[in-house]
Amino acid sequence: MPRITRRDRSDAPSSPAATPGISRRAVLGLAGAGAATAGLGVAGGFAAARAGADAAGPAGPARSYAFAGEHQAGIVTPAQDRLHFASWDLTTTSREEVVALLRRWTAAAARMTQGLPAGEFGPDSGPYDAPPDDTGEAANLDASGLTLTFGFGRSLFVGADGADRFGLAGRLPAALADLPHFPGDVLEPGRTGGDLAVQACADDPQVAVHAIRNLSRLAFGTASVRWSQLGYGRTSSTSTAQRTPRNLFGFKDGTANLKLEEPELVDDHVWVAADDDADEGTDSRWMAGGSYLVSRRIRMTIETWDRSSLREQEAIVGRTKGDGAPLSGGTEFTEPDLAATGRGDVPLIATDSHVRLAHPTSNAGARMLRRGYNYTDGSDGLGRLDAGLFFLAYVRDPRTQYTPMQTVLARDDAMSEYLRHTGSGLWAVPPGVASGATMGTADGAYIGQGLFT
Amino acid sequence: MPRITRRDRSDAPSSPAATPGISRRAVLGLAGAGAATAGLGVAGGFAAARAGADAAGPAGPARSYAFAGEHQAGIVTPAQDRLHFASWDLTTTSREEVVALLRRWTAAAARMTQGLPAGEFGPDSGPYDAPPDDTGEAANLDASGLTLTFGFGRSLFVGADGADRFGLAGRLPAALADLPHFPGDVLEPGRTGGDLAVQACADDPQVAVHAIRNLSRLAFGTASVRWSQLGYGRTSSTSTAQRTPRNLFGFKDGTANLKLEEPELVDDHVWVAADDDADEGTDSRWMAGGSYLVSRRIRMTIETWDRSSLREQEAIVGRTKGDGAPLSGGTEFTEPDLAATGRGDVPLIATDSHVRLAHPTSNAGARMLRRGYNYTDGSDGLGRLDAGLFFLAYVRDPRTQYTPMQTVLARDDAMSEYLRHTGSGLWAVPPGVASGATMGTADGAYIGQGLFT
Ligand code: HEM
Ligand code: HEM
Repeated sequence: MPRITRRDRSDAPSSPAATPGISRRAVLGLAGAGAATAGLGVAGGFAAARAGADAAGPAGPARSYAFAGEHQAGIVTPAQDRLHFASWDLTTTSREEVVALLRRWTAAAARMTQGLPAGEFGPDSGPYDAPPDDTGEAANLDASGLTLTFGFGRSLFVGADGADRFGLAGRLPAALADLPHFPGDVLEPGRTGGDLAVQACADDPQVAVHAIRNLSRLAFGTASVRWSQLGYGRTSSTSTAQRTPRNLFGFKDGTANLKLEEPELVDDHVWVAADDDADEGTDSRWMAGGSYLVSRRIRMTIETWDRSSLREQEAIVGRTKGDGAPLSGGTEFTEPDLAATGRGDVPLIATDSHVRLAHPTSNAGARMLRRGYNYTDGSDGLGRLDAGLFFLAYVRDPRTQYTPMQTVLARDDAMSEYLRHTGSGLWAVPPGVASGATMGTADGAYIGQGLFT
Repeated sequence: MPRITRRDRSDAPSSPAATPGISRRAVLGLAGAGAATAGLGVAGGFAAARAGADAAGPAGPARSYAFAGEHQAGIVTPAQDRLHFASWDLTTTSREEVVALLRRWTAAAARMTQGLPAGEFGPDSGPYDAPPDDTGEAANLDASGLTLTFGFGRSLFVGADGADRFGLAGRLPAALADLPHFPGDVLEPGRTGGDLAVQACADDPQVAVHAIRNLSRLAFGTASVRWSQLGYGRTSSTSTAQRTPRNLFGFKDGTANLKLEEPELVDDHVWVAADDDADEGTDSRWMAGGSYLVSRRIRMTIETWDRSSLREQEAIVGRTKGDGAPLSGGTEFTEPDLAATGRGDVPLIATDSHVRLAHPTSNAGARMLRRGYNYTDGSDGLGRLDAGLFFLAYVRDPRTQYTPMQTVLARDDAMSEYLRHTGSGLWAVPPGVASGATMGTADGAYIGQGLFT
């Protein structure tokens, strides 16, 4: 369940505090935030007011989500509008430095998700002859619903050469097996893999970019950015209260997604349970309450798609383009009737349509929580836009949920003709830092702590 | 002056119209818009309600700007939050096809800026066996303040080989001279130049991307995308009613910009007058009421910047990081005092600071209307984010306003050390299509018509 707190706008970093008797520099810009900071490291669970009723409400610039909780925020959290996703390679060989980085990241994430600067001092306070604690470009912006969700790649556990890089090989979850090569994969190394990943989602892109940049700054000397991806429009709803958005094929996307209002389904399909890996010979109980994230950069050949007929487009998807109703009839949220046939006994939802092949009944009941974003990364130098879907899906076990489905889609889905997978990642997303835990101090709680202890 | 109309939300494309007796397909999705369409091609000036008082008001999803007017929208229009900019190369050799493209673009732009689909039919109406008139991804979104601003590159007039490609060489404005090479330029051909450009600004990125994509679709066979650039955060205010945003150095940007509330300054520095080119031997009177747009993709080495001290950062800019006040004292909107000195007679605003070197008094009074956007395009493969400023500036004559200033900045500005110009464009932005003109018909008015007649 998402935790939502509404920040008083007068408390926002932008409010100029004209406190007399405090030096100009201390007052300028972020004095309010600086003051709020004092208790942070100790208090931890600063999600003061909880307004569960707003959980799925419309985006507001001032909404903010607590960083701590049983699960990490940013998974069932109502999908925010914008994304900045980044992957890092560790440049250190020291386990202690990895832990120190995760501590720094935890402290900064706990602050930034509340609309505070990444460090104690804002862009215009703190020592004048030192680099500022925060890069400043979000100084006048609210939390904007920012969530930061951390994941670990397989290479954190075992190097390409099979080396146990940080003494973590024995904790490698069996579910974190490399994804197989799928037909149609044209993965670019510069868009694939990495040791650490962070999904930053917010309603303001500058807030998401600011967060990744400041985490990257805190990683200097320990890890360096391998790749990063901006997404400008969410392509899924994760709450029944959200309007279904559209992907770049122009279709509603997220209609049949798992929704946070269905906690039993989410428990079954998203959250890892303590004994999920019990028979696999590794100790991955640290993943209990976590999830696995599959990230796929899927380029769409939109120019070709745009020249196909409305009839063909709808047949490929299996739903109408206007309101997203299944071609078997009804409205957007009517359950598709895969058995329904029309003239000449032809199935109304084509046998090679995306919706049929991705439907749970075609996949031994497997489902996933989709949380992807539209992307447009300029042009490809051949007169076409480089645009598509940065697909994100959270599953309890990629081996039974993602891999079989993608195998079928890559082979049989009529949509595949218009798709090219150019990037990929599989991430073990640990549980959240417990609410009420001490964060941001040398011995405080941190993301992924269960893995290192 | 911007023309603002507020659309009734109940009139938005997303409103399901349950009109009985009309076929399901015609009703679904965009029936309201389809109906509104009928009169469009003929009426032209469909800026029904004008609410000048809102001109500089806060962004609202439902705000829309009339496409027609003395000047093109998107210049003094209060800067929207998001950008998609694209440049095309013409693949045709036919002047008639260029004109036909500009007619199609005019009709589509007039529609899309009002929140209507690009063509007569929405994504789920029109002939079932033809490609839809609109790609659909903005079907449920409002106009979002969309403006589409069209520009012509020098290569439209004279080819690289000096050829008069479309019989337009005699109309080439003298001001559309190639920019010189500046120190520090590392321009990439795939990010530089082009025959045609469109600046799409909106408060919703999906609306801006949708617009460029549909214009590109309409150009199929006549022009192909050379490059495109997304910007996610405006870096300037063009109205005194807008809060000054921040660039990726974390500083407020746009403080001393020209503002639409200063129409005399805008007349002096932005709009081309009929006789501006009178002595230059070419007939460029068609540019009267237009402007010249300089686009520069400026990469910032943010990792290095982030390691410099607050003192150094402020000295380089010449303003404080917190509230953007000049280092000579005062608050954000205090005029910088370039003569003020401190201890040891050292100037408070350093001699190599950006603000001093860019200030009108250092540039023979030259000013410009800045309208740039922050960009982040993933990582550079070397562990750093590819991030910076997509600089856009409108000037009456780039030869006296942009070129001398950039020459000084490239050479002397302490900020240059942290900048690399990787893309460039110079565009003749013609005046607007006259309000009340017929648009979207075979003999209707179109953008740039003065150039072709
Ligand atoms: C660019 C690529 C893709 C596009 C454009 C796309 C588009 C869509 C659309 C329009 C729907 C119907 C609306 C909805 O229920 O959300 C849908 C459903 C779905 N898609 Fe995709 N999809 C893509 C890739 C994938 C991939 C890679 C997977 C997983 C391997 C996937 C899994 C699903 C699932 C599970 C559903 C729900 C099916 C149901 O229960 O009816 N999609 N997709
Ligand atoms: C990434 C590159 C750049 C950055 C980060 C940057 C940043 C800034 C900042 C922070 C200000 C002070 C606030 C304001 O008045 O807006 C400013 C002012 C200004 N900049 Fe830039 N700028 C950049 C490039 C340029 C370029 C290429 C030009 C023109 C060639 C330019 C022209 C100006 C002008 C005319 C002013 C107003 C100066 C005044 O009247 O006081 N800037 N810039």
